[in-house]
Amino acid sequence: MKDLHSLALKWTPQQKSQLQVLDQQRLPLEEIWIDINHVQQMVEVIRSLQVRGAPLIGIAASMALAQSALQGASPERLQKESENLIEARPTAVNLMNNICHLQKYLSLDKNSFVDKALQLAQEDISLCQKMAEHGAHLIQDGDNILTHCNTGALATVGIGTALGVIRKAHESGKKIHVYVDETRPLLQGARLTTWELKKLKIPHTLICDNMAASLMAAGKIQKVFVGCDRIAANGDFANKIGTYSLAVNCHFHKVPFYVVGPQTTVDPECRSGAEIPIENRVDSELLGAHVLLPQHSSQKLQWTPEGTKVYNPAFDVTPAALVTGWILDRGHFSKSNIKEIVC
Amino acid sequence: MKDLHSLALKWTPQQKSQLQVLDQQRLPLEEIWIDINHVQQMVEVIRSLQVRGAPLIGIAASMALAQSALQGASPERLQKESENLIEARPTAVNLMNNICHLQKYLSLDKNSFVDKALQLAQEDISLCQKMAEHGAHLIQDGDNILTHCNTGALATVGIGTALGVIRKAHESGKKIHVYVDETRPLLQGARLTTWELKKLKIPHTLICDNMAASLMAAGKIQKVFVGCDRIAANGDFANKIGTYSLAVNCHFHKVPFYVVGPQTTVDPECRSGAEIPIENRVDSELLGAHVLLPQHSSQKLQWTPEGTKVYNPAFDVTPAALVTGWILDRGHFSKSNIKEIVC
Repeated sequence: MKDLHSLALKWTPQQKSQLQVLDQQRLPLEEIWIDINHVQQMVEVIRSLQVRGAPLIGIAASMALAQSALQGASPERLQKESENLIEARPTAVNLMNNICHLQKYLSLDKNSFVDKALQLAQEDISLCQKMAEHGAHLIQDGDNILTHCNTGALATVGIGTALGVIRKAHESGKKIHVYVDETRPLLQGARLTTWELKKLKIPHTLICDNMAASLMAAGKIQKVFVGCDRIAANGDFANKIGTYSLAVNCHFHKVPFYVVGPQTTVDPECRSGAEIPIENRVDSELLGAHVLLPQHSSQKLQWTPEGTKVYNPAFDVTPAALVTGWILDRGHFSKSNIKEIVC
Repeated sequence: MKDLHSLALKWTPQQKSQLQVLDQQRLPLEEIWIDINHVQQMVEVIRSLQVRGAPLIGIAASMALAQSALQGASPERLQKESENLIEARPTAVNLMNNICHLQKYLSLDKNSFVDKALQLAQEDISLCQKMAEHGAHLIQDGDNILTHCNTGALATVGIGTALGVIRKAHESGKKIHVYVDETRPLLQGARLTTWELKKLKIPHTLICDNMAASLMAAGKIQKVFVGCDRIAANGDFANKIGTYSLAVNCHFHKVPFYVVGPQTTVDPECRSGAEIPIENRVDSELLGAHVLLPQHSSQKLQWTPEGTKVYNPAFDVTPAALVTGWILDRGHFSKSNIKEIVC
């Protein structure tokens, strides 16, 4: 039986720790792997964002279901567990797509079922490579690129979506520089994207989300690349909160704005962005910060007055009209052929 | 000799603690007043943002100079001290204007010099009232208003600039609701504006700066009011970083965008926004947060990997083309009469 090793997920079925995920809430302070022993535990680490990134969530959930099959769960039990997994994050369509795909095979023998889950992981690795190839040629030598949230190897089991494109351009020898939005409230840019870019030795500068506009006005950003959690049939897409504001600013400053995601992120059932469900998250994320302290501990800090009301959507929707190009594993789409994005 | 009591500044010349400022870095956790005994101490509390808000900085600096005069400083010494005060924050024009005004009176007897400084404070109180009156009629019953940073009684010695307008509308009985940008990196919105609005019992909701755009797209924001640190002769203005991104989003979503400031914020020497100096601040503000702990202590927290490079301008410039109206104490200006903003 095959193993799987990615930056944030390990599947080693012959060992005692069969399934492990990197705790992304502890990065960049500590690199701690969490043993996953049952599906409910995976649901919890997805909900708590210890596992995050739309493609990674889909594969991690699939591997948890595979583990349950290996442990001898009945098809009925696997069906119930798969439903729990789908409900863990309502906006990410990969999770739904991956698990719905596996639901067709619940009656297979356990080893064949595990192979089906591993196929999804292999596919993700290959999709990332293809997206990177389609996107990297859009980047010129000398470009300053801005990105939002984290869309790299931490968010997938391959090299990433938007960050995979940037990495490919860098690896092909183009001299590039990346501006990283810190991505409030959960700071995936500040904590995770900087961590990946540092490992990859790609020059980068961290900014607050509200600084991107003045960099654009100063002509310091040539292109923006972002990931996506769901793409509707008309090209509208949901991504981490703050993406839409960037898209409006790109439109105003005539900066090309590209969205990168695998075909599995396209939801043909969703006609437009208005139909994408947007998850609202807990107030505490915005009232302060969940601060990491060494030795596995952390502290919730609050810098707002007691009782402050907050609005905390995890995602926003960017209309197709503001997108320069959609980079999928199947190729590069523009407004002229956006209808072909559903296949 | 007159006393002066504002939300964040106390001048009681007959008492031992003559000059006190509220430590705005400790809000909202603790309300701690700092005794100021000499000009260099005032320079330091301005630099550390314990005293902040363009109009308040100007008055606080003036009172520090008045205190030095009362203590018997020579005109030569007052001249040197006034130069040090001006250099404390390079973008705020009120500071420069107030201190340059007082420099004309350095040879007066000490009591008359103190009166000149107190006149500036009285003027600020009166200017705030006038701005509030000119601006409040722009707000309709039922409006949802968005504001950035802190522009209230903590930022002035009166009722504030943009927040003064909002307060006036509320006090006149209009039912309004305020969305508060948290205002990264220093979180003046999350820490200070929410604290003031809570005291004033004005309904409000805290958001991350990157969420304003999707609220506008959903039609949930009727008007935006912001303050300013310097207005150029052509109407371009500098304000807290993030203001420009808001202005671009207002333009795109056709949401009226108003800037509020006293005439002293207009710099006739500055022909356009390109001539406004923009202060860059220290990396640590962006690499994490300076977290308050009880009993006067605090902790610097870092959530980014070691060695991360940052870009941290304190302000950005919004061009006049994106402004719906300029609300000054002299009245309400629009693009049609913007040339009259210099008087």
